[in-house]
Amino acid sequence: MPLKGIVKRQIRFEEIDMLQIAWHGHYTSFFEDARIQLGNHYGIGYMDLYSQGILAPIKTMHVDFINPLRFMEEITIEGILHYTEASRINSEYIIRNKEDKIAATGYVVQMMLNTDYELFLTQPAYYKNFCNKWKAGRLI
Amino acid sequence: MPLKGIVKRQIRFEEIDMLQIAWHGHYTSFFEDARIQLGNHYGIGYMDLYSQGILAPIKTMHVDFINPLRFMEEITIEGILHYTEASRINSEYIIRNKEDKIAATGYVVQMMLNTDYELFLTQPAYYKNFCNKWKAGRLI
Amino acid sequence: MPLKGIVKRQIRFEEIDMLQIAWHGHYTSFFEDARIQLGNHYGIGYMDLYSQGILAPIKTMHVDFINPLRFMEEITIEGILHYTEASRINSEYIIRNKEDKIAATGYVVQMMLNTDYELFLTQPAYYKNFCNKWKAGRLI
Amino acid sequence: MPLKGIVKRQIRFEEIDMLQIAWHGHYTSFFEDARIQLGNHYGIGYMDLYSQGILAPIKTMHVDFINPLRFMEEITIEGILHYTEASRINSEYIIRNKEDKIAATGYVVQMMLNTDYELFLTQPAYYKNFCNKWKAGRLI
Repeated sequence: MPLKGIVKRQIRFEEIDMLQIAWHGHYTSFFEDARIQLGNHYGIGYMDLYSQGILAPIKTMHVDFINPLRFMEEITIEGILHYTEASRINSEYIIRNKEDKIAATGYVVQMMLNTDYELFLTQPAYYKNFCNKWKAGRLI
Repeated sequence: MPLKGIVKRQIRFEEIDMLQIAWHGHYTSFFEDARIQLGNHYGIGYMDLYSQGILAPIKTMHVDFINPLRFMEEITIEGILHYTEASRINSEYIIRNKEDKIAATGYVVQMMLNTDYELFLTQPAYYKNFCNKWKAGRLI
Repeated sequence: MPLKGIVKRQIRFEEIDMLQIAWHGHYTSFFEDARIQLGNHYGIGYMDLYSQGILAPIKTMHVDFINPLRFMEEITIEGILHYTEASRINSEYIIRNKEDKIAATGYVVQMMLNTDYELFLTQPAYYKNFCNKWKAGRLI
Repeated sequence: MPLKGIVKRQIRFEEIDMLQIAWHGHYTSFFEDARIQLGNHYGIGYMDLYSQGILAPIKTMHVDFINPLRFMEEITIEGILHYTEASRINSEYIIRNKEDKIAATGYVVQMMLNTDYELFLTQPAYYKNFCNKWKAGRLI
């Protein structure tokens, strides 16, 4: 039932720190690459939601670093959307290196606000419609 | 008993995203500012540890976003070191805006590796010495 | 006749690259710190101009790197506004390290667009007014 | 006789600024993507040179911004190496948007230092060998 998407990326020169590994702060950006791809694919990206009067800022972010990443290393970032009936977007991430070893895992929770920055207490219609299709198995 | 330090910072133009708020990924850097300041003040910064043969990469990072931050906003970042007998550095962070409202909270766990990237199972001598002083109340 | 401003900054951990020096791309951000400070001080910052219907995107950027910068190094960034009768903002930058040696120099040219993204061929009123005061020696 | 390479990239959410266009500082990173690709392809990347005792930090960087870039825009970055007999790497860049319109152009000059950070006055052997092959038309 979770929805999944994968993107690839290569570790950049500027992403490496003094310890010769990818600086931990850049993983936020790695996660975002997968989230953007999922959002686009399912029509719930930042701009899709924005055009419906919905802002989806990030409420919580968590990263566990398992194996360090080096310059030029090719990674895959798997993004996983978990179903919810709340007006939230719950996503999970798994970063793997070329040998398919897990480099990092984590999750992100987005809340939903209207354009006056007030919290949606129940799912706004556009997102509810998406969740209904999801629940009915009409997204793959 | 926790050790505390505070740094100030102003939100930069480049840190603001399309939603006109500070992009969530930059909070990693806000936390790091406080961690670097604490590390320097207590002699357990990245380079202090490195010169003792200790690498202290980040194992876990967690951020809760409470109130958004705007362009030019002045923030204070409070870093708090929590005592541990493990070979870890456990730190907590509180970001406040000018009105002293909490903008974000979070924590970071660092593990300790020797220069062959092997985990220290017990505290390396340099760090143990620091923790002993701390426990004895000889750091303020 | 040029207008000057100085800001201080310390080189961050995340700004250091694999060669153990500040990554060249971050100098853009160093320059911007001085530009923002000048803009605020003289009422011609991004948001000041924006509120007057003027966008001031960057047209040209140039950096000469003279001496490398290291982790934790304290720098001063001097921003210098050069007078012009064109609808441009011409600014120059000098970055100095703690020993007052020049680390980098450079310049930035900003053009001015209206909110339909059309170039102002002559100075828009708000900016012309600022330049007139400048020319008359009424800014210090 | 110049050597060319092209990479593709998509403008990220985090790269967009308050004016809803890609922040000018990120173009440094766009150029670097093409430079890294060229460096790898021809064996004169940062790490190739480093393993030969050659550091190649950036001496000069110049960017002209022609057309702004938006969120999700697909760009191509063309990197062009220009032949020189100096101990420098001279590279030029052209960023094009999806409609093949030029978004930005620029150049970067890298100098060469030994591991004691002393300037190579003449080309170090490894790089000279590369330039000789290039001159002889044995790279394409």
